Order: sequence, then structure tokens, then C-alpha cells
Amino acid sequence: MSQLAEHVLELGRRARAASRRLATIARDRKDAALFALADALIDGEGAILDANARDLVAAKLKGLSAAMIDRLSLDTARLAAMAQQVRDVAALPDPGGEILKEWTRPNGIEISKIRVPIGTVGIIYESRPNVTSDAAGLCLKTGNATILRGGSEATFSNQAIVDALRAGLRNAGLPEDAIQMVEGTDREAVRLLAEMDQYLDLIVPRGGKDLIESVVRYARMPVIKHFTGLCIIYLDEAADADMAERIVVNAKCQRPGVCNAVETLLVHRAAAAKLLPRVATALRERGVELRVDDETWRLLGAENCVPASAADWDTEFLELILAVKIVRGLDEALAHIDRHGSHHSDAIVTEDEATAERFLREVDSATVYWNASTRFTDGAEFGFGAEIGISTDKLHARGPMGLEELTTYKYLIRGEGQIRE
Amino acid sequence: MSQLAEHVLELGRRARAASRRLATIARDRKDAALFALADALIDGEGAILDANARDLVAAKLKGLSAAMIDRLSLDTARLAAMAQQVRDVAALPDPGGEILKEWTRPNGIEISKIRVPIGTVGIIYESRPNVTSDAAGLCLKTGNATILRGGSEATFSNQAIVDALRAGLRNAGLPEDAIQMVEGTDREAVRLLAEMDQYLDLIVPRGGKDLIESVVRYARMPVIKHFTGLCIIYLDEAADADMAERIVVNAKCQRPGVCNAVETLLVHRAAAAKLLPRVATALRERGVELRVDDETWRLLGAENCVPASAADWDTEFLELILAVKIVRGLDEALAHIDRHGSHHSDAIVTEDEATAERFLREVDSATVYWNASTRFTDGAEFGFGAEIGISTDKLHARGPMGLEELTTYKYLIRGEGQIRE
Repeated sequence: MSQLAEHVLELGRRARAASRRLATIARDRKDAALFALADALIDGEGAILDANARDLVAAKLKGLSAAMIDRLSLDTARLAAMAQQVRDVAALPDPGGEILKEWTRPNGIEISKIRVPIGTVGIIYESRPNVTSDAAGLCLKTGNATILRGGSEATFSNQAIVDALRAGLRNAGLPEDAIQMVEGTDREAVRLLAEMDQYLDLIVPRGGKDLIESVVRYARMPVIKHFTGLCIIYLDEAADADMAERIVVNAKCQRPGVCNAVETLLVHRAAAAKLLPRVATALRERGVELRVDDETWRLLGAENCVPASAADWDTEFLELILAVKIVRGLDEALAHIDRHGSHHSDAIVTEDEATAERFLREVDSATVYWNASTRFTDGAEFGFGAEIGISTDKLHARGPMGLEELTTYKYLIRGEGQIRE
Repeated sequence: MSQLAEHVLELGRRARAASRRLATIARDRKDAALFALADALIDGEGAILDANARDLVAAKLKGLSAAMIDRLSLDTARLAAMAQQVRDVAALPDPGGEILKEWTRPNGIEISKIRVPIGTVGIIYESRPNVTSDAAGLCLKTGNATILRGGSEATFSNQAIVDALRAGLRNAGLPEDAIQMVEGTDREAVRLLAEMDQYLDLIVPRGGKDLIESVVRYARMPVIKHFTGLCIIYLDEAADADMAERIVVNAKCQRPGVCNAVETLLVHRAAAAKLLPRVATALRERGVELRVDDETWRLLGAENCVPASAADWDTEFLELILAVKIVRGLDEALAHIDRHGSHHSDAIVTEDEATAERFLREVDSATVYWNASTRFTDGAEFGFGAEIGISTDKLHARGPMGLEELTTYKYLIRGEGQIRE
């Protein structure tokens, strides 16, 4: 066995053992430990910023973009914000132990379905080092042991953050193996983690397509993917024009690089002449390029838009580009969303309740909107208090993933000697 | 692409299309269709029993055991029971559409988390042909399209049953592709199904270790395994002797070949002299072989038991054999269960509430019992009305898997033009 394989297996063994100990630790001790984690981040400022400086030197040598270097950079204020986020998690209600259902069978056995930690969670992520403390804090809150694997460009920063967090766990008298990180940057570690189903109960990849693809290929345990989204807005015949403009502009322009930004706009043919020119003008004023079907092209004029290619209907632009198409009505919109959307967040704008309800019912996406911007698909906007990400999967966690989604359940049966006849 | 690969992909495309149509069909039409399915099974009796006869001829030529041939055999009464089971499913409450949570955010958007069908479910199973109609009925009830892949020994029977079920769907005006079966017996089909994540939302393997292993290896979508169980009972120092005997005998002997039968018995050292001789006598009277540790061997006498091998602590016997070990107390019992158990169903027998509650809290198994037989881990015993199996996985479905576990959720957001600031 390679040294890396031994290392990853050892992380797994330790995570499992730590998760067993976490299961026996009371809520207030876990919350106290979260404060200790936050303190340790502040205490570790010197080491963490030194490590971050090393990552930044390497990033500049590699020629990373200014935006990426900004995402990677830590300073006193950002570290304080990371510590505060961990303290905020301590203040959230703990979903663990919640009784989801309770009933008594005719033979007298009492069955309770209770919420419990998942156990051990592997989180594989890229880029921003604050994910390290966020993810570790959320996992600790919910009683899960976690094995982290961050992006190579943040290696030194992540390691220093994890060192601080583990010092915090020791200070709080909790098992430091509740938070571990894979050493080094060997990509093979992703495969090794994904195959280690004897020790990892769940693996959460957050990052680009290649990362997610390689986790899916190898994983033997459940995977919850955090992919980008191809979100679609449909402007119905009965859409309010002001609202349509406001929602489309917000969903495209407020933060175009995120998974819940809109990428395709569908417009009912009967309302196209009324809605499209003003929506297009508002978008173009904000620098949005419109890639449009033939009918829209004729309506808006060649100087205001460019013809869409076939690939545009399947592209998550993640920038100020919007694909626009006129459809014959709701049926065509539903078919387009089903075929080209990524089932993440899709919206209808209409004043017609029956049409809206049909859209809400028939669109098979994690979040389906009526008269609101797709940008609300977000743990904070949902009121979850904390978010480990936005699941693009359909089972266990779908859409924004908060503390509850870091738990599972088990059944407890209390009897008085009942046997099965 | 091979002909088989094309066939499986075509099943996938059709299943997805059917699932979209099922999502628009009202509850009462689905329930009416279940009655049509049941009628079609009865109407198809001639064809189904002819097909079954062909399978039985092949089974006898292959030299299958009498027990296996019995499991494979259909007759008028068994077919009527299958039809009745489908009608019973129609009568169950439909979990679909249930509002799991509903809240309004400060900005006025209304969020509802509602229960919806999973979409498309692949079920891979072995042996008994009644699983074909059971699984198809449960999936239809919950609005899922299903692709079935049965065991090779029941090929003709399963195909005839599916033909009948599809005739029932047609009679009811529902898309017949809601129920499909993989043609032929090529094992490659299992890999093709497991890789087809663009069309299958979930795959459920029910069968032996090799089948489950190959699904896990290839699957790109969530898998819910239905494995066997290594269940353990711990007799505490404070166990009631009558109850201990009754529960152990029931859990071992009532049906030894099932996943919730007990395989290992742990006994507190301080109670061993009181409990073990009478439990051992009761078990031996029922033909149970005891494979025991040294201390038990000395206590019971060489004529009443055999020394356990190291492998016995990790073996699911599924027959009248029980591994028995004396432990120093709860800690050792918990450690043994964690290390050797399969986290399916484990029980403590004790009159001491504090000990019991610690056991219930710390044992990380799908179902944890206090003073009841492990044999109650079962959809019918839980009162679920129907069971698609017993999940040995930890996420989405854990333990008995009924109608609710064939659903997922989505979020609906209703606004009045809200945008994100």
C-alpha cells in the first residue's frame, strides 16, 4: 500500500473513532468547543497569515488571476470574520436528537425515529480557505467527524487553519480527530477518500466539474454534489412587465458568477412584443450580452443581440450573457426546462395562478419559483443560519444544505419483552 | 454501442418521459391504475403460469434446491395474493404532495418544502417473482417510473408479469413505460443501469453480496442497498432472565434466514452464570449450535457448545448457529457491536433504564432495541403498510423502507416580485 493510501486510511480510522466519541458528547460541550475553535483561529493568526503568505507567493508565481488571489487572501479582518462565523454556528439550534416521529404499535413496542449525526463526512473543496473553518464548524455542531481536502493553491493556509481548529478541540477536551485534513496535494487522495466507504459515511465535493466527476466515478458511499446551475426563467403571457424586468435583471446581474443566477430566459410568444424590448434594454444597460433565437432576433433587431448557437441553451455562462428564446407557451417552456435546465432553480413570472401552480408542480427542480428571483436559493436566504452548500442532487439533501442535512436518523424501539409471533 | 447498451438507454429515456407524465397524474387515477394492474395480473394468469412453468423446468434442470424452486413457483393462489398486495397498496395513504415544512421569510417570500416522487427508480433483485409486482406497485403509488431487473432464474415469469402490469397501465390510460423490465439475462445490464445517471435517479439492489458489490462499484446515482444483517443482542447484568431467554430464542429461531435474525449474543460477565445456562438450553432444544468464547465454553461445558473461530464474530450465519461471548460490561459490548455488527438491528435486554438509554444513544445502527426482539425490523411490523425492503444504508432511507422512502422533496417559493438585494 502506498504511503498516501496508508495516510488516508489512518485518517478514516481516526475519524470513525472520533465520531463515536462525538456521539456521546452533550450539546453544550460541542457549542463550547465551537467557541474554543473560534478563539484558536484568533490565537493562531500569526501562523495562519504566515502560511497564507506562502500560498500567495506560490499563487503569484503560478500567475493566478487577481480575483483568485483575492479569494485566497486572508488578513486580520477576514480571519476575525471566519472566527465569528464559527461562533454564529454555536448559537444555532442543534437539530440532533430531534424526535421526527414517535408511535406505538398494537403489540406495545414504542418506535421513535430520531435525528442523529451522519457519522463521518468527507468534504472536498477548492479555493477559499474560509470553507475550511466553516465546514469543520458545521460538522462539529452536528456531531460529525470530518476529513477535509482543500484546493492545492490554499494548502499551507488550510493546514494552518486546521492546526488551529485542532488546538481548539484539545482546549475544549474534545477529540482532535473530529477535524482532520489530508496532507499534501496528490490528486490520488480524492480517489482514496471516495473509495473508503468503511470509514466515510458521506462525501461532499464542492468545486469544478472535473473534481465532481472524479468523486462520482470512484465513490462507494453517498455523494452530495454541489454543482453549478443552469437556471431558467419563464415569462408567461400573463407576466407583469415591471416585475418581469426586475426579476430577470436581478437574477442575471446581481451576481452573475453563482449557481442560482439565471442563464436562459424563455418568453411566451403572445407577450414577447410587450416584454422583451424593455427587458432587453434593461439588461443591455447593465452590459448583458443577449444570445437569442431567430424570433427574438427579428423582434429586437440585429444591433441589440446575437444569434444563439445550439450550445448556448446548454451553457452555464456564469457571466453577463443570457440566452433568450420565445416559446409557444407553458408546455414548450416546461419541455425546454426539463431538457436543457439543470434542475437547480427555475422560475415563472405570471399573474395567472393556475399557470403558476402547474409550473410549480411540474418543474422537477430543487427550487421552483413563482414571481421571485432565482437568487434566493441559498441557505441564508432560506433562513437556515448556515449552509454547507447547495446540493444539486435529489436524494438526502436537495437545494440549500444546512445543519439538518448534515444529520440522518435512526429508529429506537422500546419494549417490555415483545417477540415476533 | 452494443445492442444491450442501446436497449438499456432506451428504457432510461422512456422511464424519464413516463415519470414526467406520472408527475401530472392525480392520486385517484394512480390508485385506479393499481386496481387495473391487479386485474391484469388475474387476467394474465394463463400466460404467467405458462411462463413460470418454463422457468421451473429450467430450474429443475439446473438442479436448484427444493426451497429455491418453491420460492420461484407460482400458482393461482400465489398470483391472487400478488394481485391483492397491489390492491392493498392502492388503499394506503399517498405521501406525495405532503407539505413537510412551510414558512415565510422577512421579505415575504413563502417557502414550502413538499414531498415529491423521486422520479425514476431502478430495482435489481433476485429470485421471487412476486417482487416484480410489489416493487412496480409501490413505485407507481409514489409516482415513480421503474426499471426492473429480476433474477435470471425467473426471467420468463418476470417478463410475463411485467407484460400483464403494462397491459393494466394501458387499460387505466397511464403511460405503460412507467413499468419496464430489462430484456434478457446479460449481467452487463447491471453495470449499464448503474452508470445511467442521466435517466435513473436511484438504484436499489436487493440480493446477494456480489450483486450489491457490482452495483456499488459502477453506480453514479444514489444506491440504497438491501444487505443482510449481522444483528447482536446484549444481555446486561440487569436483564430479566425470562425475557432474555424469550427474546434470544425468538430472534434466533423464529426465522433464522432473514436479515433481522440475531447472529451474536453478548452476555455481561456478572450475569453469565444466571442467564447463559438457561438460554443455552432453550436454544439447544431448538437445534441451535452455539459457537462460544473460552469463558462461555468453560461455563456451559464442552458437550453443549463448540469453540468459536475468529471468523464467527463477523459471520451472518442465517441459520441455526449463534456466536456467544461473555463481556465485561456495556463498554465492551458497545465496542464489539461497533466493530463486528453490521449496524442493522441490535438489542439490549436490561431492567436498568440508564444502561438502556446509553445503549440506545450510542449504538449507531438503523434500529436499536431495548427489551424487544430484533425481528421487528420490518415494514409491516413498523406499520408502514408496504415495504420495498430494509435499507442497510445510512442516508435517505435507513432501516425499513416504505412509501415515504420512495419520495424526495422540492422547495416551492411563491413571491410577489421579490428580488435579492
